[in-house]
Amino acid sequence: MKELALGIDIGGTNTVFGLVDEKGNIFFQNSFKTKNYSNPNDLAKVIYDKWLEIKPKLKENEKLKGVGIGAPNGNYFTGCVEFAPNLNWNKKVPLKSIFEKYFKVPVYLNNDANAATIGEMMFGAAKKYKDFIFITIGTGLGSGFVSNGKLIYGYKGLAGEFGHTLHIPNGRLCGCGKKGCLEAYVSANGIKNTAIEILKNSKIKSLLRNFSNSELTPKLIYKAALKKDKLAIRVFNITGEILGTKLADAVLITNPQAIILFGGISNAGKLLIKPIKNAMENNLLPVFKNCVKIIQSKLLDKNAAVLGAAAMVWQK
Amino acid sequence: MKELALGIDIGGTNTVFGLVDEKGNIFFQNSFKTKNYSNPNDLAKVIYDKWLEIKPKLKENEKLKGVGIGAPNGNYFTGCVEFAPNLNWNKKVPLKSIFEKYFKVPVYLNNDANAATIGEMMFGAAKKYKDFIFITIGTGLGSGFVSNGKLIYGYKGLAGEFGHTLHIPNGRLCGCGKKGCLEAYVSANGIKNTAIEILKNSKIKSLLRNFSNSELTPKLIYKAALKKDKLAIRVFNITGEILGTKLADAVLITNPQAIILFGGISNAGKLLIKPIKNAMENNLLPVFKNCVKIIQSKLLDKNAAVLGAAAMVWQK
Repeated sequence: MKELALGIDIGGTNTVFGLVDEKGNIFFQNSFKTKNYSNPNDLAKVIYDKWLEIKPKLKENEKLKGVGIGAPNGNYFTGCVEFAPNLNWNKKVPLKSIFEKYFKVPVYLNNDANAATIGEMMFGAAKKYKDFIFITIGTGLGSGFVSNGKLIYGYKGLAGEFGHTLHIPNGRLCGCGKKGCLEAYVSANGIKNTAIEILKNSKIKSLLRNFSNSELTPKLIYKAALKKDKLAIRVFNITGEILGTKLADAVLITNPQAIILFGGISNAGKLLIKPIKNAMENNLLPVFKNCVKIIQSKLLDKNAAVLGAAAMVWQK
Repeated sequence: MKELALGIDIGGTNTVFGLVDEKGNIFFQNSFKTKNYSNPNDLAKVIYDKWLEIKPKLKENEKLKGVGIGAPNGNYFTGCVEFAPNLNWNKKVPLKSIFEKYFKVPVYLNNDANAATIGEMMFGAAKKYKDFIFITIGTGLGSGFVSNGKLIYGYKGLAGEFGHTLHIPNGRLCGCGKKGCLEAYVSANGIKNTAIEILKNSKIKSLLRNFSNSELTPKLIYKAALKKDKLAIRVFNITGEILGTKLADAVLITNPQAIILFGGISNAGKLLIKPIKNAMENNLLPVFKNCVKIIQSKLLDKNAAVLGAAAMVWQK
């Protein structure tokens, strides 16, 4: 019997779902706008209806083993999505039980960063690591910490909020309401704001001066850096230094073998990894030095969320 | 059959060892100056000889199940004490195998903070917690992180170096050679140096002005604080605020249910716990607030090291 998992990633903008086998092959993938379904029950039903369409096409030896869902603020322990600012749902949605009612197979819910961490562990760059830190940099900065092959959930399933650790007391206002969070510096917006600050406070010539503040994007800054634009390179150096310095703290606490970088911003590759590595090494104890690899994710952005969600089904 | 464990704590000054049962009762305890034995083999032999004296006094139904050793830089994975600056031994000492040669029972080695963490989990204040952070503040700042009932060792058994995370870039020189480590502020010396700084930079009246810098100790500062000495209270407020702010980072990463404070400095109790709690709560995400207990260890300082070392024997 060949077992398949339905991986579902519910994002603020899109919901993507797909059928995945134990090797990470995706057989089918589909998506729709999350906002079309203000009621989570409707969202579950539309996915279930799609599943009923696919089901007859499975081979005789194929069956659905379970459903894995990644969602903002999805809690693995409670099975609920709790206070997700980007989803227009009620305060606490029992998503796991809603899906179980339809699918009648085990359903696993997790937050998106945790799901991606498990995906990376099962199908991606972390396959060979039992102790690693997964960092996803996009709109925000998410993370997952894996120790001895197990994701650290913590007492209430809230662990891994590395993005909201403190970079600078009373620093930039973060989306969470706190000031000075790492995420306010190391994220799409963080990078943009760093560029805006340097543009304002320096007279360095730069291609970026041809754009208004609102036009600036990490991609644009990245392209300028590839053209050896000094200001753009400085933006990545500063961002990497901030992240590397905080990662040293995390490394001293959990002693990982590797750090996996994921998400749009991580595509900057060496431009970001080099300053991260330098700052991290400078802040480690001697016995920790040159022991932690910093590598890019091996999952394609477009598949990672679905693979991560599906991976939970086999993790159990 | 009643099983007993021999718990051995090898410290820079004293080596203490004792026979412990599964409930944490200590039947026998002895100690000697560590420096009397520059060769770790001699140190093992003197403990073994003492064991041979005790052994005939055991009841018929009592037997030795194993030996647990806590030592600075003791590594659980390798069984070696590696580069411990306070022990005048060779660079890498295979302590586990040295003791196994004598005792012919399983021997477990760990660093002192990890051993104390396990002791607290088995016999102390952390009995009922599966997710907690153990912090020991004395000469240095040690820590142990427990997730889902398991101590986090990391890839090379080096995890838990919370004392060497960064408080202030280019801050005070730490014993480890780095600058600005948490331990340089939150430790016996750290507290003393904070007091010296305030004495020098302020004109606050204080009992502490009756002492020379070299006479100042955390105990003296504590006694002054109990007498409502403003400067002394400020020292504890600053120390607590620094620790609480860094603990918020650790809480965001590991989401513990409790933080256990241990070691000489933690005896300051509320004087320290109140500012720790305030600073920690101020730096947490809303969903984490008022969920983490900060409590003092329930192990007596004089027994904790031996209990912690012994606890490893039953943990396995």
